[in-house]
Amino acid sequence: MNNINQIPTSRIEAFSDGIIAIIITVMVFDLKLQEIPTDKTVWSELIKLTPKFISYAISFLMLSIMWVNHHQLFHQIKHTDRKLLWYSIHLLFWMSAVPFGTNFIGVNPLLWQASFFYGFIFFMSALSFTTLRNYVIKNNLLHDSINKQSHIKIRNKNRVALCIYLLASFVSIVSVYISFVLFFIVPAMYFIPEKITHSNINTL
Amino acid sequence: MNNINQIPTSRIEAFSDGIIAIIITVMVFDLKLQEIPTDKTVWSELIKLTPKFISYAISFLMLSIMWVNHHQLFHQIKHTDRKLLWYSIHLLFWMSAVPFGTNFIGVNPLLWQASFFYGFIFFMSALSFTTLRNYVIKNNLLHDSINKQSHIKIRNKNRVALCIYLLASFVSIVSVYISFVLFFIVPAMYFIPEKITHSNINTL
Amino acid sequence: MNNINQIPTSRIEAFSDGIIAIIITVMVFDLKLQEIPTDKTVWSELIKLTPKFISYAISFLMLSIMWVNHHQLFHQIKHTDRKLLWYSIHLLFWMSAVPFGTNFIGVNPLLWQASFFYGFIFFMSALSFTTLRNYVIKNNLLHDSINKQSHIKIRNKNRVALCIYLLASFVSIVSVYISFVLFFIVPAMYFIPEKITHSNINTL
Amino acid sequence: MNNINQIPTSRIEAFSDGIIAIIITVMVFDLKLQEIPTDKTVWSELIKLTPKFISYAISFLMLSIMWVNHHQLFHQIKHTDRKLLWYSIHLLFWMSAVPFGTNFIGVNPLLWQASFFYGFIFFMSALSFTTLRNYVIKNNLLHDSINKQSHIKIRNKNRVALCIYLLASFVSIVSVYISFVLFFIVPAMYFIPEKITHSNINTL
Repeated sequence: MNNINQIPTSRIEAFSDGIIAIIITVMVFDLKLQEIPTDKTVWSELIKLTPKFISYAISFLMLSIMWVNHHQLFHQIKHTDRKLLWYSIHLLFWMSAVPFGTNFIGVNPLLWQASFFYGFIFFMSALSFTTLRNYVIKNNLLHDSINKQSHIKIRNKNRVALCIYLLASFVSIVSVYISFVLFFIVPAMYFIPEKITHSNINTL
Repeated sequence: MNNINQIPTSRIEAFSDGIIAIIITVMVFDLKLQEIPTDKTVWSELIKLTPKFISYAISFLMLSIMWVNHHQLFHQIKHTDRKLLWYSIHLLFWMSAVPFGTNFIGVNPLLWQASFFYGFIFFMSALSFTTLRNYVIKNNLLHDSINKQSHIKIRNKNRVALCIYLLASFVSIVSVYISFVLFFIVPAMYFIPEKITHSNINTL
Repeated sequence: MNNINQIPTSRIEAFSDGIIAIIITVMVFDLKLQEIPTDKTVWSELIKLTPKFISYAISFLMLSIMWVNHHQLFHQIKHTDRKLLWYSIHLLFWMSAVPFGTNFIGVNPLLWQASFFYGFIFFMSALSFTTLRNYVIKNNLLHDSINKQSHIKIRNKNRVALCIYLLASFVSIVSVYISFVLFFIVPAMYFIPEKITHSNINTL
Repeated sequence: MNNINQIPTSRIEAFSDGIIAIIITVMVFDLKLQEIPTDKTVWSELIKLTPKFISYAISFLMLSIMWVNHHQLFHQIKHTDRKLLWYSIHLLFWMSAVPFGTNFIGVNPLLWQASFFYGFIFFMSALSFTTLRNYVIKNNLLHDSINKQSHIKIRNKNRVALCIYLLASFVSIVSVYISFVLFFIVPAMYFIPEKITHSNINTL
């Protein structure tokens, strides 16, 4: 049953693309205004949407980073196997929970439980991505030309992101505002320092 | 009209992936919290979501198992034909009903009718998958290198899952709790015993 | 700019698959039960869902027939061009309107306006499919091995379906029940008579 | 890490297709009628839906134009790189905001803020498309056979569309009806004048 272990990655990529596309897009449907009777309340209605919009934008950015890294990782994978499918599904399960967290924090931005769950969901997503990468490295699923060392470096760097997410979760009990700052730091990490070392490949 | 019977499986795979991705993902949008006025009721609101979350997680797992098996089966199919498309659409119809069952049992977990429909929908999904596999085996649509015997074994094994689903449906009239246990057994079947006979391929 | 006219059909197929998959799947999310306080009203709640379920099932079937025919037609197309993209988008526009009609007739099954719009949307979908097929035939976009005559036959046959849809629309003013019967006849047309002439290819 | 810069465009195309398909399709789910008690109010209910339907139809058309242009542009791109992914995601972010604008203007058609946001979202979408095209031209990502001049012409032409969108945004403060006219002009631009210069490729 040799060819079973040689199944191409195309279908798990398409399935992941589908799920991530839906997660990202359907979140925007929570951003809705009702019929506004008089012109006066329009801006106040729009301002009420602000926390929803910010949480949407951050989730969009976080999920996009994950998608870019997923794209990059799977581009370097030779073939998939049954276990890799399940590691991917595990990742998709936690990514699918992002709209729940986004809605929770968007509707109740000042409740610490909202920040707690929001951070926890991203922590679990990042953790399952790291587990997936580990599996790929350990089982020689990468194309031979790929330097494993770079993936190990990325993995180590990811641990910083993991710690920030976990910290953001628990610090929300003390102050949700510190959590908010931490939620901005992780996406920033992936855009700012890369200009220094261009050959580095970033992943979540 | 020879090439009509030689259409590749790529498009039915993509269509199935799309539908399954949407079913899986959009279910999470039932997991929503309203604006919570005082801090005190947060946990009680979250606890109220628990049955919805559990039914979501089980449905996610069941649908993922079906997707993995669908992936595996279609990877082994040489080409598709008109009838195979319709067997696939029949399967997708029952899989599309899963969100209805999931919502029903998530909102009314203790009504036996909810467990009945939930079990029945999975029974019909598994049945239509078995019918699809039978069609593939009988019409020589598998690649020549594939051992038909393994598929016949899987089909026989699937009958156990079918019986459990049907049992879960009808036993709900007596006690929904027995149904709940049975709903956990089927996914467990696909993860636990596989470690003993590694060359076996499991399917729903 | 020769290669512009040689773009493969893969992407319009993927885009259509995505849209049709979403249309089909998200309709099921209208099939929802609220929390039911006492056990007594469960069946009456479920019975209230019946018109919604029937309209969902018919729409599922109709859209599946269109997808199968779309699959078959595009499998026979050599390459796409800018105009073909727009004919496809025109078709997708009317198919996208199906959930509106399905919801309308599901919620208000006895209003003749519901049957009128439901029939009209399917008429426009079928009409835009015929226009698309005509364009393909006239512009020699089919593979050379494909017999154009069979497509012309299909097109003629489709006119029957077109007439039935239009009839179903307008007869609803007299009696919605006659419309209901007509809505069942078109899908039946695609399953029953095909057993007689197996080499015939059916399309909407 | 040479092959990283040679990743094919297939996956970003599939991801974009998925997102655009969802945006287009799920908007139709705002077009819903409640149960209508007496036959008399049906037409008034349907007339109330008219602004929603018109805004849906325009958004559908605008997004379709963008998809056709996206399809055409990516068909001419040799390979993608990390930055191109992010330019694409930036475009998808603004396209994802379209359902928000469509809902806003559909529910409150006469509020100038609705027209303002609707125009602004399309302005940002068109701007991010132009930025994406600029990046592709400047970094030699087009196939060698493609004439860069035609893309530069398109880019210049796009600036007209950009100006119209921006004008439509701000003119809404004076009169929303002028904005409405402008919203019709941009899609018209892509269909009418093309008949004169057939070798021209239009893009948003």
